Amino acid sequence: MAEPVCERLALIGVGLIGSSIARAAREFGAARHIALMDSSPSVVARARELGLADLATEDHAEALAGADLVIVCTPVGVCGEVAQKIAPYLPKGAVVSDVGSVKGAVVAQMAPHLSERTRFIPAHPIAGTEFSGPDAGFAMLFQNRWCILTPPDGADASAVEKLMAFWTRLGAKVETMSVAHHDAVLALTSHLPHLIAYNIVGTADDFGDETRSEVIKFSASGFRDFTRIAASDPIMWRDIFLANKDAVLEMLGRFNEDLSALQRMIRRGDGQGLFEFFSRTREIRRSIIEQGQDTAAPDFGRRSGN
Amino acid sequence: MAEPVCERLALIGVGLIGSSIARAAREFGAARHIALMDSSPSVVARARELGLADLATEDHAEALAGADLVIVCTPVGVCGEVAQKIAPYLPKGAVVSDVGSVKGAVVAQMAPHLSERTRFIPAHPIAGTEFSGPDAGFAMLFQNRWCILTPPDGADASAVEKLMAFWTRLGAKVETMSVAHHDAVLALTSHLPHLIAYNIVGTADDFGDETRSEVIKFSASGFRDFTRIAASDPIMWRDIFLANKDAVLEMLGRFNEDLSALQRMIRRGDGQGLFEFFSRTREIRRSIIEQGQDTAAPDFGRRSGN
Repeated sequence: MAEPVCERLALIGVGLIGSSIARAAREFGAARHIALMDSSPSVVARARELGLADLATEDHAEALAGADLVIVCTPVGVCGEVAQKIAPYLPKGAVVSDVGSVKGAVVAQMAPHLSERTRFIPAHPIAGTEFSGPDAGFAMLFQNRWCILTPPDGADASAVEKLMAFWTRLGAKVETMSVAHHDAVLALTSHLPHLIAYNIVGTADDFGDETRSEVIKFSASGFRDFTRIAASDPIMWRDIFLANKDAVLEMLGRFNEDLSALQRMIRRGDGQGLFEFFSRTREIRRSIIEQGQDTAAPDFGRRSGN
Repeated sequence: MAEPVCERLALIGVGLIGSSIARAAREFGAARHIALMDSSPSVVARARELGLADLATEDHAEALAGADLVIVCTPVGVCGEVAQKIAPYLPKGAVVSDVGSVKGAVVAQMAPHLSERTRFIPAHPIAGTEFSGPDAGFAMLFQNRWCILTPPDGADASAVEKLMAFWTRLGAKVETMSVAHHDAVLALTSHLPHLIAYNIVGTADDFGDETRSEVIKFSASGFRDFTRIAASDPIMWRDIFLANKDAVLEMLGRFNEDLSALQRMIRRGDGQGLFEFFSRTREIRRSIIEQGQDTAAPDFGRRSGN
């Protein structure tokens, strides 16, 4: 196996992403030593039971001792607080990163606490499932998934290279872009779809018990796909919408305008308009399959099973 | 193998559903003889190449001769026209059915043409993929899927039983309900989700080429799941929204009210409200998995492949 990318890796926060990074780093030999830190004793205990790392602790000093790569894997909303807490224990020259789905707010909250002795390179691995917690992680989560780095102007080139090498080793495809551009693109590809999915499932939930049970029964007709997205971690998503408010509201405004137009076509019985709209959207699907971002298998193999 | 449920099955329209019924009827011995009829010569030619049935023809009289079960499998928008065309050739006592995703409009359009010599029992198998045409069908499409029958008041009991037996043989779970109830439930579980998915993909498509290519690149972050739904047949969906206009507009009204409330929470930074909303929607997902309507496997096995 190739040489490790870093000597001592410290992961702060052991949820789906933190535990997946630990598993992947071990699987692909990305770090010589892996330390996990979580503020929850039960999570630390579980990480030990699962044998996720060389060290699992609630103690900042212990987790961060000698670390040359530190990745904060907590929900976006507590990143600033976490940065403040770990700052005194960060070794000089350490590369510090995160995994937040929003970059503007995270940088604003974390950067002030990270002294000039460390090198802060924000990152966002675009990977996840609807499950949470240390048990939910797995080593292959980042395989062929994108990881976006948003290095600040004048960032230390060797720090960027180190983080790139780390994510590449874990199986990710790495790309760099500006913080603002990241937040706009993700508002459209991720944050808005999640908001819409949460919303439609909520609409169904507001009906009485009888209708709700029928919605569940007949969910395979389309609704089901939304429920998977809307089962994602509520704390994570609360934080994302608060942290990326402006970009999300901008995308939501566009979505609402388009939906009003579709609503009007239905009300007026404009079959030609509906047909043209529905034909256009097939193209995007085709491009996604061509670029290997999804499989063309119908219904993702559900047809054979349940 | 058990005795066939019907002697001569005639399927009018050979798309995804019609060709899947033909395949399943043969696979499970549901009919002694299967005839396919389509108005498109190329579709008939393809059905012959694929060997989907005992007979494939553009001729109504030939397809319907001696049929004891006739299922119209065309888009909802042409059901009335098709009923008018086949009426003269329907054998006395034949059970006539359909597969439309909307029942009110279909019954209104078809029933007047079907003489009292036949027995019309509307049906809706809740199964499909995002693909269309005779090549897209497969025999297992209906396995463990619901098929809803909406027999009119005073429907002939033996006709209902025959249709139930047919769909059960194809692997479906059969349930009966009223036309109005069907259309309301499906507006929520199927039609609204499709409208929303089409809309969000359309919103992305309106951006310039650069943003669009990034949307495709980073689609795994949530957007991808919408594109699959929004790749469904545009003619089928145009017809559904026109035919189930009232129920869809009613559900869309509720959806919009809820979305306004979420939008307001984001704008005002109401983290507690967002958290409560996002927690509630997890419950519905859990129920869907418990009732076997989906698998709990994260990301439907995508994690291992692409």
